[in-house]
Amino acid sequence: MTCHTNADLQKIVNEAALHTVYGEVAGYIPALAEVNRHDLSAAVYNIKEKSCIYAGDYQNKFTLQSISKVLVLALAIQDMGSEYVFGKVGMEPTGEPFNSISKLETSIPSKPLNPMINAGALAVTNMIKGESSDEKWHRIIEFVGRLVNDKNVSCNEIVAKSEFETSWLNRALCYFMKQHGVINGDVEELIDIYTRQCAIEMNCFDLARAGAVLALDGKDPETYEEVIPSDIARVCKTLMVTCGMYNASGEFAIKVGIPAKSGVSGGILAVVPNKCGIGIFGPSLDKRGNSIAGVKVLEMLSNRNDYSIF
Amino acid sequence: MTCHTNADLQKIVNEAALHTVYGEVAGYIPALAEVNRHDLSAAVYNIKEKSCIYAGDYQNKFTLQSISKVLVLALAIQDMGSEYVFGKVGMEPTGEPFNSISKLETSIPSKPLNPMINAGALAVTNMIKGESSDEKWHRIIEFVGRLVNDKNVSCNEIVAKSEFETSWLNRALCYFMKQHGVINGDVEELIDIYTRQCAIEMNCFDLARAGAVLALDGKDPETYEEVIPSDIARVCKTLMVTCGMYNASGEFAIKVGIPAKSGVSGGILAVVPNKCGIGIFGPSLDKRGNSIAGVKVLEMLSNRNDYSIF
Amino acid sequence: MTCHTNADLQKIVNEAALHTVYGEVAGYIPALAEVNRHDLSAAVYNIKEKSCIYAGDYQNKFTLQSISKVLVLALAIQDMGSEYVFGKVGMEPTGEPFNSISKLETSIPSKPLNPMINAGALAVTNMIKGESSDEKWHRIIEFVGRLVNDKNVSCNEIVAKSEFETSWLNRALCYFMKQHGVINGDVEELIDIYTRQCAIEMNCFDLARAGAVLALDGKDPETYEEVIPSDIARVCKTLMVTCGMYNASGEFAIKVGIPAKSGVSGGILAVVPNKCGIGIFGPSLDKRGNSIAGVKVLEMLSNRNDYSIF
Amino acid sequence: MTCHTNADLQKIVNEAALHTVYGEVAGYIPALAEVNRHDLSAAVYNIKEKSCIYAGDYQNKFTLQSISKVLVLALAIQDMGSEYVFGKVGMEPTGEPFNSISKLETSIPSKPLNPMINAGALAVTNMIKGESSDEKWHRIIEFVGRLVNDKNVSCNEIVAKSEFETSWLNRALCYFMKQHGVINGDVEELIDIYTRQCAIEMNCFDLARAGAVLALDGKDPETYEEVIPSDIARVCKTLMVTCGMYNASGEFAIKVGIPAKSGVSGGILAVVPNKCGIGIFGPSLDKRGNSIAGVKVLEMLSNRNDYSIF
Repeated sequence: MTCHTNADLQKIVNEAALHTVYGEVAGYIPALAEVNRHDLSAAVYNIKEKSCIYAGDYQNKFTLQSISKVLVLALAIQDMGSEYVFGKVGMEPTGEPFNSISKLETSIPSKPLNPMINAGALAVTNMIKGESSDEKWHRIIEFVGRLVNDKNVSCNEIVAKSEFETSWLNRALCYFMKQHGVINGDVEELIDIYTRQCAIEMNCFDLARAGAVLALDGKDPETYEEVIPSDIARVCKTLMVTCGMYNASGEFAIKVGIPAKSGVSGGILAVVPNKCGIGIFGPSLDKRGNSIAGVKVLEMLSNRNDYSIF
Repeated sequence: MTCHTNADLQKIVNEAALHTVYGEVAGYIPALAEVNRHDLSAAVYNIKEKSCIYAGDYQNKFTLQSISKVLVLALAIQDMGSEYVFGKVGMEPTGEPFNSISKLETSIPSKPLNPMINAGALAVTNMIKGESSDEKWHRIIEFVGRLVNDKNVSCNEIVAKSEFETSWLNRALCYFMKQHGVINGDVEELIDIYTRQCAIEMNCFDLARAGAVLALDGKDPETYEEVIPSDIARVCKTLMVTCGMYNASGEFAIKVGIPAKSGVSGGILAVVPNKCGIGIFGPSLDKRGNSIAGVKVLEMLSNRNDYSIF
Repeated sequence: MTCHTNADLQKIVNEAALHTVYGEVAGYIPALAEVNRHDLSAAVYNIKEKSCIYAGDYQNKFTLQSISKVLVLALAIQDMGSEYVFGKVGMEPTGEPFNSISKLETSIPSKPLNPMINAGALAVTNMIKGESSDEKWHRIIEFVGRLVNDKNVSCNEIVAKSEFETSWLNRALCYFMKQHGVINGDVEELIDIYTRQCAIEMNCFDLARAGAVLALDGKDPETYEEVIPSDIARVCKTLMVTCGMYNASGEFAIKVGIPAKSGVSGGILAVVPNKCGIGIFGPSLDKRGNSIAGVKVLEMLSNRNDYSIF
Repeated sequence: MTCHTNADLQKIVNEAALHTVYGEVAGYIPALAEVNRHDLSAAVYNIKEKSCIYAGDYQNKFTLQSISKVLVLALAIQDMGSEYVFGKVGMEPTGEPFNSISKLETSIPSKPLNPMINAGALAVTNMIKGESSDEKWHRIIEFVGRLVNDKNVSCNEIVAKSEFETSWLNRALCYFMKQHGVINGDVEELIDIYTRQCAIEMNCFDLARAGAVLALDGKDPETYEEVIPSDIARVCKTLMVTCGMYNASGEFAIKVGIPAKSGVSGGILAVVPNKCGIGIFGPSLDKRGNSIAGVKVLEMLSNRNDYSIF
């Protein structure tokens, strides 16, 4: 049984939704804690048909959180080149938690292990070109707008503010990296841009469309114009496989086998090369911080449609 | 320009061989240190043609070393089931060195992060079924024989003995895991089997054939009989991508993009799903312990034949 | 109110014994687990009077366990000299647990931080002079005999055997150190001597007398003959202050302020320079592995008799 | 040969000064880097004689740097009580570097190991009472003024400013601790007070007098008034022994055997209980960050006058 229609997908979503009770909503940001734990929505943008199937309350909006890491990385490599970016941030997966600081101290020279952990993502955002903090932010939001084909995509100011006021750990990471020359400039400005990028808001349909761009090696799924150079799109997909699902990346690669990036909001961006982009929103999280029902949806989709790249 | 003939491959090997001067032969095992640093041979087993192209002194034999980890894992999962194996050993990549012991201490409960690091591989070998040490070893060598279609494949006794007599670090890992219930039984017997599996000897042609089995999801490339169940073959390939190339796995995934496992002997087993198995031998190693010229061969092959799975 | 008589000491012991209910007997060695959790005995050997006061079942025997570390260190420095010993083992306290292996890996070059943690103590025992394993052991037990003025002091063979058969962690430490050249020779023989030294048996009266030797800078409290050169006795006392009470050494120094070494059997050897040696046995342990009531006895003794060296 | 006169001390200083060539001046703060590497001065305040002997350019001023940690600790315990202070900051020595952040992450709950490392000292300064940042600072400088009997003691504004502008690592420590509730309030204000306390300036004569207060268990050596309650003075001296000399505290305890606290400026505050306070300034540092010639002076003084407390 494959999944090709809204009804197929709805069945999968219904079955996966039974798992929301076993997870918990991220509590550390008040704005995130207010969502309904049992929400689950999914959208699949099929490249061939240039159309989307969807299930659940697919118009529910959520913030990107860590999903933004992979999108901003694509922009940073375009801005600074691969050599520069990976001169400052590594390409290797890590067994440490996403917000860990220890490895920055024990690695010599100090270098975040990859762009999917907080330290690496902060360093990547620090590389975005722009004369001012404002210009940097506008370049990010404009780039995300192109990916989702929505010029009006914006950040949730309440979430951004709430995170800005409590990002003590990210500030610790930044100051540590500033000490070691990994980042430069004003830390407060960087935290401001970073919390905004994390608070960019969309629904699963938008996210699926962004995934379709990556699935097409960087080309717009409607116009076939290049949005991301193909080699950069490939780098993003590779890092999504090796480090996209926090400390469950290895298990996810084995069980699902497609590039994916999750966020603590419960969103997951997934990519099936040359086939489709997938967007999921399910705020009930498992112990590793991934949408507990969202992972189930992807596992079922991958099994039924034989999506694994391995 | 693609690579489809012996001549094509020889050109690639010739170009890659220029890099052997920048690496070094593994010095810690006397028997390994005696090889010619400039050796480089490669073989590609194409599934469609059921035939192999090769270049360099392709009959040069070398020991599997860490490459054996992925083969013995395939046997262990057949023996004990996926749930049992991954109950004892994790699936996650690690930023730690392959022979590190620290993570065993700091992870609670103690559990090797994955089967591609020494601790995990020792625990996996400990799971192989057999009434006696001898039976376990014979089951391993017989299984490897089936993969390479050579019943006479055997271990290099000199290398095995040399490693057995100096494996202090692996003994430390074993006793630590014995303390925490990750392994059981006699440590000396386990070290004996493990050093033998590392000393299994073959040439790049044999290794390419073993790769072809994985490329065919576990089926023999000549008879199409199942040698490894397809789900287990997929697990092996996934772990090769996330953790197969030591602490350069992430970089290799980005630059080459195919499942691969290397050993300190300078061998690399690589797999292009549904297309081919690749065997390489180039004993000059880079700083991460991977064949410096072998990685170049794979990078060129992947670029020319568009092998990346991402 | 000071403590100078058996009655004074008995009062202190009675009060301290109320705390035994809050601790637990070490369970990891079956032979140790069989003792009565509420036992508490103490002896104070006063140098001036050349006599001992005592309280509780002072004839109860117990094994030295980690207390042996400081005694064997005194012998090793006599055997090999301070420079050699501290060339292999550091002098610095550590925040890590006594049986930790991580620091051996992260310190470059690999070197146990001090002789009071297991790794350091194993390396120290490895330095004891002797043509054979037997000779080494006899030199240790003879030396301990001189400290307690009892030629018949011996090891508890049941405890020694029980520990020998389960010392997986100590074997891991040894093999790790063997890999890095910190120790040499056969690991099984070293574990044999080490488990015997830990199983040396005595009562609190004997232990107090050993403490009196250290209190007198190495001189026998009865004959004033030198048993330990004074500079070596001082080294021992210093290490007892900085690292003698596991991960509570700093707190003990603040609250009690005298050199002391504890063992998981519940024994504590304490030394008040130029005044007295103290031996305690109370097998109920606190979370750090120190005799919970024994520490109380020392705290009260120190406060009443103003024993702190600070 | 003991040391009791200016001439005796000058001989010791002359001999110790030969070692300045083997060390280096702290380079990370521009203002510190400008001093003369070969400077060496010492003062010993003898309690009995109520007078000081001195040698070298004893009027050379230097900033306290880490020496301030022990003085501010004495004030914080007076302000908040021992239980509160050590509820937030541990009492245990650590094998980690003074500016390490890893242990804050790996300790659960997060707690600086002791008040002599940067994390602990920042947390201690955060506890000083005061309605405003200004009041807190004035209470600190006033307290230090009482210790050295100089109401005009002040901070070197150039050094304070220079450190404030480059304290990225200390900011990282603070934000990490703020995340975990170890500190509260504004981080920039805390860094401001902390860099000022580190920049308090005096000569070795002043420092010797502060040491004399600790040597007298907190009493002023001239008036015998209590400046620090005796139990708090004892806590300070104990922590100086177990953690006062960075990662050479254990070695210093063995070789010198007296409570001491050093700073990267090259200052050392040392205390011989009931005998004397010692102040040293020698900016050439050994690899652990202690005054290389200053440690020699203390070693010679301790040996000649039998100062060791062990």
